[in-house]
Amino acid sequence: MQQVYFDNAATTPMRDEVIEAMTEVMKSNFGNPSSSHSFGRVSKSLIEKARKTIAQHLNVAASEIIFTSGGTEADNFILNSAVKDLGVKHIITSKIEHHAVLHAVQKLEREAKIKVSYVDLEADGSIDFKHLEALLQTEEKTLVSLMHINNEIGNILDLKRVAILCQEKDALFHTDAVQSVGHYPLDLEEVAVDFLVASAHKFHGPKGIGFAFIRKNSGLQPLIVGGEQERGLRAGTENVHNIVGMEKALSEANAHFETEFAYLKNLKQYCIEKISAEIPNVTFNGNSSDLGNSSHTLLNVRLPLAEEKAAMILFQLDLKGIACSRGSACQSGSSKKSHVLFEILKGEDLLKPSLRLSFSIFNTKEEVDYVVSVLKGFITH
Amino acid sequence: MQQVYFDNAATTPMRDEVIEAMTEVMKSNFGNPSSSHSFGRVSKSLIEKARKTIAQHLNVAASEIIFTSGGTEADNFILNSAVKDLGVKHIITSKIEHHAVLHAVQKLEREAKIKVSYVDLEADGSIDFKHLEALLQTEEKTLVSLMHINNEIGNILDLKRVAILCQEKDALFHTDAVQSVGHYPLDLEEVAVDFLVASAHKFHGPKGIGFAFIRKNSGLQPLIVGGEQERGLRAGTENVHNIVGMEKALSEANAHFETEFAYLKNLKQYCIEKISAEIPNVTFNGNSSDLGNSSHTLLNVRLPLAEEKAAMILFQLDLKGIACSRGSACQSGSSKKSHVLFEILKGEDLLKPSLRLSFSIFNTKEEVDYVVSVLKGFITH
Ligand SMILES: Cc1ncc(COP(=O)(O)O)c(C=O)c1O
Ligand SMILES: Cc1ncc(COP(=O)(O)O)c(C=O)c1O
Repeated sequence: MQQVYFDNAATTPMRDEVIEAMTEVMKSNFGNPSSSHSFGRVSKSLIEKARKTIAQHLNVAASEIIFTSGGTEADNFILNSAVKDLGVKHIITSKIEHHAVLHAVQKLEREAKIKVSYVDLEADGSIDFKHLEALLQTEEKTLVSLMHINNEIGNILDLKRVAILCQEKDALFHTDAVQSVGHYPLDLEEVAVDFLVASAHKFHGPKGIGFAFIRKNSGLQPLIVGGEQERGLRAGTENVHNIVGMEKALSEANAHFETEFAYLKNLKQYCIEKISAEIPNVTFNGNSSDLGNSSHTLLNVRLPLAEEKAAMILFQLDLKGIACSRGSACQSGSSKKSHVLFEILKGEDLLKPSLRLSFSIFNTKEEVDYVVSVLKGFITH
Repeated sequence: MQQVYFDNAATTPMRDEVIEAMTEVMKSNFGNPSSSHSFGRVSKSLIEKARKTIAQHLNVAASEIIFTSGGTEADNFILNSAVKDLGVKHIITSKIEHHAVLHAVQKLEREAKIKVSYVDLEADGSIDFKHLEALLQTEEKTLVSLMHINNEIGNILDLKRVAILCQEKDALFHTDAVQSVGHYPLDLEEVAVDFLVASAHKFHGPKGIGFAFIRKNSGLQPLIVGGEQERGLRAGTENVHNIVGMEKALSEANAHFETEFAYLKNLKQYCIEKISAEIPNVTFNGNSSDLGNSSHTLLNVRLPLAEEKAAMILFQLDLKGIACSRGSACQSGSSKKSHVLFEILKGEDLLKPSLRLSFSIFNTKEEVDYVVSVLKGFITH
C-alpha cells in the first residue's frame, strides 16, 4: 500500500547525512565532554563546534546557545526561571500556544501566583496587536511568550514587531520557534527576542535534543542542577551524538534553504489548488492558505463534512496509508478537539473536521494527488 | 601511541549492537510516538517494548519506568516532586552523593526551606547505620537519598537494609543507581526502594537517556510539563532511538552478566595486585580494593607522591594516552579536589594524589600493565 507522511509538523524523517554524522560520533567519540583527557576533549570540541555553528546560523554568540533535551524542556526552563529568578510577575501569552508553553505558564499561575493574560486573537488566529499593547501597560515585571509559527495553523508572527513593543514597555520576550528554526532563516541580531526555543526533530534532526537561545546576561538559573555543563545552565552529561545531529540538520537546512523553500511553497500551492478544485466548499483554517503569511510546510483544511463522518476520518485515512493529524501530535489520529481551532472557530465550523497536512522536502505532488483523491472519495461517498 | 581508557565511570564506549539498533530506528522509524497513525504507532510500540524489557530486568511493572534525558534529570525530577507534591520536609542524604543529588537537595534547602541531614560516614566511606537510624527518628515527612554504588570510590550500599529502615520509619527511599544498573542485576521486588535512577551511558548505551523507577501510586508530578508523554510524568517528544539504545544496552549487559562480571572482577584483582607489587606504599580509597564490597568496575588509588608532583599527574598520564580521573567526570584531568575524598580522607592522605581507574569489558590486562608501568615510572623519577 502507498504510504504518505503528511504529518511533518509532528515530527520529520531524518536526513541521511544526519544519521551518518551521529553514527560516526557514536562509534568514534564516546568521551564525556566534562573529562579533560583526550577522549573528553574530542567530545567537548564536537559540542562546542555544534554550538558555534548553530549560533552562526542565528547570528548570535555561541555562549547564548544552551542545549536541552528538546523544545518542551527549553520552554519549561525559560518560563520557570524567568518567574523564579528574574522576578517576572505577569506573563502575556495566547491561548493557541503549544502546551509546552501553556501548561508551564498555567503551572506558574497556580504555584507561583503570577498573573497570566491571554492576548485576543483575530478570526484568522493572528494576534490583536492593540490588545497586546494594552496588556503591556502594566507596572509588574512582564514576559511575553508568543510562538513564531503556530504548529496547527501555520500563522507566522511578526517577531520584530512584538520585540519592539516589548522593548518599549520593558518586557521580556520569549518565543517558541520550534516550527520555524530549520525552516526559515532567523537573524536574532535583527530581532530582539530575549529567549527562543528550537527542537531538532522538526527539521530532519534527531528527537530528544533542542536548544534555548538565551540573550547574554539574562540571569536565568538552571531547571536541572547537578553539574557545570552548559555554563551551569543545564546539568547532565551532554547528548553528544544528538547535538552533532542537530548541528548537521540545521546546516543542511540552511545550505539548501532556497531550493527547498521554493519546492515546498510550490507543493503547498499545488495542494491548495488541487483541494480547492476537487472538493467544493472546502475552507482553510488560520492563515494557512495564505502563502505569504503562513508556513510553507503546513496547510490546515476544513472539510465540508457532517460531524458523524468527521469522527472517523483520520482512521479512514490511516487505513489508506495516509498520516496526518487534527492538530498537534497528541491529537494525531485522535478525535480530541484541537485547543487552537477551538479558540478561532465558531459554531458549525468547529464541528466540521479539520485536517492538518504538513509537508517536507520528501513529499511529492503525486502524494498530494493521492491524498486529495482519497479525501474526495471520502466526501462524495 | 597506545590509548588506554580507564574512565568508564565517567562514561563508557557504546556496544556495536546498541549503535546498530539505534541507527536502524533512526532510518526506519521516525514517527512521533504520540501520533496515532501507523508511523506513530510503530514508534510507540518501540518505546513500550523498551519500557517492558527494562521493567522485566528490574522485576517491576512497565508503568513504573519513566524515561528521562539522563540520570541528572531523573534525580532532579524525583527530589523536586517529593518535596513539592508529596510533602517531604526533611531529606537525609550523604556528603558523598553525586552532585545531581547534592545540588538538587541544596537547592530545595534554600528555596523550599526543607531540612537536610547528612548521615555520618565511616573512614572507608560507608554510611553509619546507627546515625541513619537516629536521623530517621523524626516527625517530619522524610526522604532518604543514598546512592547504590558510589561513583568515585565504588562502595556498594546495602539497599535492602536501608529500605527496611525506611519502611519502619515511614520514610521514602530514593537511590541513585547510575553506577549499578547495567553492572549488577537488581530485583526491585526484593528491595523496597520507592525511587531509583539510572543512566544508559554508564553501561555502554547512549548519552542523553536514562530512566526513573517510580513505585506505583507515588503521587509524583512532572518537572517538565506540556504533553501527556510518559503517563503525564515527563512531557516532550520521546527520544525514541536513545530509548531503544538503552533497552539494547541493558539487555546485552544482562545477557552477558556472568562472563563479563567475572572478566572485570579478574581484571580489577589483577590491577590491585600489580599496583601493590610495583608501587610500594600505595593505598586504596574507600572500599575500592575490597572486591566483595565494591564495584568490580572501579578502583581508587592513592599514590605515595608529594603534592607538587600530584598536580601534574593526570596531565602526564594524558600525554601517555591514559585516560582516568580524580573523581567524577567534572574532575577528570582537573586539579579540583574531589568532594568525596574530602569527606573521607584526612591530613596528608588528602594531599596525596588519588586516581580513579574505572574499567569496562573493553579493557585488558595489557592495558593494566601499561598504566602501572607508567605510574611506576612517574613515581620513581
Ligand atoms: C552516580 C551518578 N549519578 C548521576 C549521574 C548523572 O547522570 P547523567 O550524566 O546521565 O545525567 C552520574 C554521572 O554522570 C553518576 O555517576
Ligand atoms: C510549537 C512547538 N513547541 C514545542 C514542541 C515540543 O518540542 P519537543 O517535542 O522537542 O519537546 C513542539 C512539538 O512537539 C511544537 O510544535
